[in-house]
Formats: sequence, structure tokens, C-alpha cells
Amino acid sequence: MIRIAVDAMGGDHAPKEQIQGAMRAVKEIDDIEIVLYGDEEAIKPYLTDATRIRIVQSDGTIDMGEKDPIAAIRQNRKSSMAMALSSVRSEETDAIVSSGATQALIAGAHILVGRMKKMKRTAIAPVLPTASGKPMILLDTGGNLEIKPEYMVQQAHFASVYAREILGVDTPRVGLINIGTEEGKGRELDRVVFDLFTANPHINFVGNVEPKLVLDPPCDVLISDGFTANIVMKTIEGTVKGMGAMLKQELSKGVLGKIGLLFSIRNLKRFKHRMAAEAIGGAMIYGLRGVVIKAQGSSKAYGFYNAIRQAAHVVRQDVIRKVGEVIEKDEVNDESAA
Amino acid sequence: MIRIAVDAMGGDHAPKEQIQGAMRAVKEIDDIEIVLYGDEEAIKPYLTDATRIRIVQSDGTIDMGEKDPIAAIRQNRKSSMAMALSSVRSEETDAIVSSGATQALIAGAHILVGRMKKMKRTAIAPVLPTASGKPMILLDTGGNLEIKPEYMVQQAHFASVYAREILGVDTPRVGLINIGTEEGKGRELDRVVFDLFTANPHINFVGNVEPKLVLDPPCDVLISDGFTANIVMKTIEGTVKGMGAMLKQELSKGVLGKIGLLFSIRNLKRFKHRMAAEAIGGAMIYGLRGVVIKAQGSSKAYGFYNAIRQAAHVVRQDVIRKVGEVIEKDEVNDESAA
Repeated sequence: MIRIAVDAMGGDHAPKEQIQGAMRAVKEIDDIEIVLYGDEEAIKPYLTDATRIRIVQSDGTIDMGEKDPIAAIRQNRKSSMAMALSSVRSEETDAIVSSGATQALIAGAHILVGRMKKMKRTAIAPVLPTASGKPMILLDTGGNLEIKPEYMVQQAHFASVYAREILGVDTPRVGLINIGTEEGKGRELDRVVFDLFTANPHINFVGNVEPKLVLDPPCDVLISDGFTANIVMKTIEGTVKGMGAMLKQELSKGVLGKIGLLFSIRNLKRFKHRMAAEAIGGAMIYGLRGVVIKAQGSSKAYGFYNAIRQAAHVVRQDVIRKVGEVIEKDEVNDESAA
Repeated sequence: MIRIAVDAMGGDHAPKEQIQGAMRAVKEIDDIEIVLYGDEEAIKPYLTDATRIRIVQSDGTIDMGEKDPIAAIRQNRKSSMAMALSSVRSEETDAIVSSGATQALIAGAHILVGRMKKMKRTAIAPVLPTASGKPMILLDTGGNLEIKPEYMVQQAHFASVYAREILGVDTPRVGLINIGTEEGKGRELDRVVFDLFTANPHINFVGNVEPKLVLDPPCDVLISDGFTANIVMKTIEGTVKGMGAMLKQELSKGVLGKIGLLFSIRNLKRFKHRMAAEAIGGAMIYGLRGVVIKAQGSSKAYGFYNAIRQAAHVVRQDVIRKVGEVIEKDEVNDESAA
């Protein structure tokens, strides 16, 4: 059985949507059991099924707008997020899913779960929909603003193993976010990373990728530092939102337009759904001793269910151990080269 | 009379669309005359009007894919781009418009036009459409990848004067691209720039702006270094393109969808037009002694006409002299503060 810890109290629509997502998960996925960390009183009204579900009472929550996430975690060891994270470290559970505050979850994961052996930095890696229908991993969207090139090599290893084991891509292609495709483009960091990726036998590097291909990318993994990839993610979000508003304005113009819109509503909804990325699940925090999945703060039951499904899949495929092997091999290479 | 130099040979559809754009410009804008730099034989077939138009024969062009733009300019002094740029320096013309290779145009502008007094760096600044209908200036989208914070202050001055004089905004609001809105967010560069902008009396600083508001921004000017702003611009481009493709897939699904699409075609075209940014003109290169406008490489006649109109407007409003005054004042402030 794969045991998933669920932070039932984190998120805009907690605990309702989190519990409903969990209900669906135990119903549809046979090999999991779920431990709900949260307030039993608040949870119970939504508990329609008790199969392979257990509740652990927590005390307090971490606010979404927490200014000092490290202090928030340290001072709230009995919060649903902190308890759920600790359960992964103590191996009571195999994975945790939370829609709670991103920065608190990262800080908490560092403190309570810990980094995996030899991994220098963590990274957050959401999976985005693309025009071709193939998902793409974007990272690091919120970890390390200023990072050493060598650490990005480890992150590329993690993403490559994830793409192979979870997305089912045979030889995942890795692209480096840059302002031009030619070698030598970009900042000092980008040029060094380009050379390291090119030289590394475990990275199938396709070179620099300009974000004008971000939704139709020539790669399965798109990587940059934690500042740049976060800016890319937020620009996609902003453009989708802005275009949605503009599209609505334009499509409803004139009588013909209004009729057209009427017929198109169902397809537009499907489009919105596709862009919402809910179907893809959460963002995994790479580089930890355990499986930590950040579901969107605005997650509804379906999105949260998908994040649970994703967590189970990562455990089932033994992703963290496999990443550890690659990093181990890399180190041996470095030493024999030195 | 405002004299505009047109690089007739640069761009994907040159010289045809460039000449047609120029024809429209002399017809619709009374106070301009245009000097076309290019191959007379190639230009003549599209010359439907000779009013306030002059041709200067050039020799050779700068390729779009030029790897060493500085060498390309130095070795092609008789090219249409180089000659047009030189005409601004020698004051034969007041402004130049080119759809030629961006990097060559920047390099050429440095060599042949020169930076304005006291201006430390140039910047490229396109004007983007937004959901509210108010345009927004984005910079620096392609100049200085790694830049000193003080130089960004000068660039903010330029953008503020431009927004006031050309976009008609009374007190232009300046936002700093960042991964969060709170003070103290971002890289070392962003934190220093935040403080400098806050302290500067000539910048109406609204603080950090996350790109998830990029098409519905709380500011008229959105600024970052030349790497980040370029990544933002290309991510917008990529998202618009990718969403366009996905939207088409989704909207044409099913019989009802196809009927809806039929009624919506006209509005969708208008939407595409709005996003194409053609209507807004070109990107100005800030910080030079003369007015240099980069029209998109893919410009058609209408887009190129708009870039010419924009160039004339910048000359008419005496933007460069007014920016010079602000930078002068800033320096006096700095000295009295020191």
C-alpha cells in the first residue's frame, strides 16, 4: 500500500475540496491509503467514505500570506502542514500533498523532510500543458533565485528521471531557457550551464530554447534558475488570463459574434479547463528525501485528486531512488575526471 | 518638416511592405518627408507616389541571421541600414525606422548614431497592448543582459518621458518585474533597483509587479534587465501563439463548435489583430542621440506605417531633449546629495 499524507487544511477551498479529492482518490486508486492531517470536526462533514482513510488531529494552520515561512513552520509544529511533512520523514507515510502556502511548504520540507543525499538544492517543477498535447516540465519556478550552475545539473537529472518515469518519455529532452538559440547566448550562468549540460552523459540536452516556443516546446524539460523560470510561469499565467479577458471582449462583439459565442461556449469551457492545468496535478518539489507535491492553492477536488494520483505514481515508480542513482554515477564521473 | 530615414531593405517582406508603409505615411501625415535608403531598382515598382519621398541608393544589406552584428555594420557602411543610421547622426534626417536585424540595428545605432550625453546604456522598449486597452511599455527587451541598478534608473526616466509625451499618460506609473509584490523580493539587482526607484523624485514607482498581471498591469511602464524583460516578451509571444493553436483545436470540436467558429471568425480575426501588436508600431531604442525605431522583422505595410508615425511623433514631441533634461536634473540631485 502507498500511504499518502494529505494536508487537509491548506488551500483556498480547504478542507472541503481537499477531502472530496481524497475521497475520489481512494475510490479510483486501489493501492493507496490516505492519512488526512487536519481538524477532525471540520473534516467529518465531507467524509463520505472511510475506506483506507485515517484522520490525524492537527492544531492550527499556516496562513497563505505568511511573511516568515521558516518561523511559521517552526512555531506551528502541530499544524496540518507540519505534521503531514513530519510523517514523511518518520516514514509513517510515503508522500505528502498540500495546497498550502508555497514558501511555507518549501521551508517546511527543508526542515521536516530534509534534502536527499548529495542533492545540493531543491526546485519546484510544475508540469504544463502544451499545444501538442505532450506535457512539459518547467523548473525551477520558485526555489533558488541565484544558483550555481552545477546545482542545475542535478535538477536536470531529477526532471529527466521524472519525465521518463511519470510522463513516460523514453529519452527526455532538456532545454535551457534563453533569449536566443545559438550557443554563447545569455548571461554568464546560462553559458556555463550550457557547457555543463552538453558535457553530461545523463542529460539529453537540446540546447537553448526561447520562450516564444513555451507552449510548443522542442523539449520535455525546460529549465532555468528560480527567478527566470518563475517569471516565465507567471508570464504564461498573465498572458492566459489577459488573453481570456480580451477574447471575451472581442468574441461578444456584434450580433453574429454573440451567436457564435453561444455555440462556442462548451468548447471555450473545455479550453479554459485545458489551460487551467488542473488536470495535470501539482508541482513536485525536487530534491527531498520524500515525495512532496504542491497542489495549487486554488485547487478544487478534481485538481487535488490529480495531485494525489501524481504523488502515488511518483512513489510507485521509485523516482527518488532512481534520481539518487544518477547523481551517484555523476559524482563518480566527476571524481574519475578530476 | 520632420525627416524620416527608412531602411527600405530590412525585414522579411522588404522592400515591398516598407515602401507601401512609407507611401501611406506621406499620404496621411502632413509634416513628414521620407528618405528611402535602398536599391532604387527594387524600390521603384512599389513607388506609387513621389510626394515628399526621396531615394538614396545603398549597396548591400545586413542579413537577419548575422552572427557578428558589429562586424556586419562595420563592413557594410553602404548598406541601407548603415546609411540610414548615419543620416540621423549627420542630421540629414531626424529619425530612422528599420525592420532589419535587431542586434545589427542596436550595434549600428551605437556605432553610427551614438549614445546621448550622460546616458550610460541603451534599452529596447516595445509597447504592448493590454486588456484595459491602455498600452504598456516593456523594457529592456534586448539590450543589456547584465546591468547596473543606476543605469536602470536612467532607463525608467526615458520610459516615463515617452509614456507622457507619446502615450499621453499624465504621471506614468513605473513597475519593476519581480517574482512577488512585497519589498525585499527578488535578486540582489531587484532589491537595489527597488530602493533607487523609491528614492527618485522623477519616478512614479508603484513597486514590484508580478508578470501574472502582464496584460492587465497596474503600471504604464514595466521594467527589468535586458535578460528578464526579453524572457517576458518572448513568453507572452509564445503563450499567445500556443493558445491560438489550442483555441483553434478546441473551438472546432463538434458540430455546434464548428457552427460557433463560423460565426466567430470575424471577431477572432480582430482578436488576432489586436494581439499582433502591429497597430502599436515598433520598439524604440532608448538612450541614443537620435530617434531609432525598430519595426518588427515580419512587419507588413500597416505595421511599418505605424512605426513611421511613431517616429514622427517622438521627433515632434522632442522626447530625447526632454529625457536629457531629467537626466541632467538627476545628476544635480546626486551631486548635491553626495
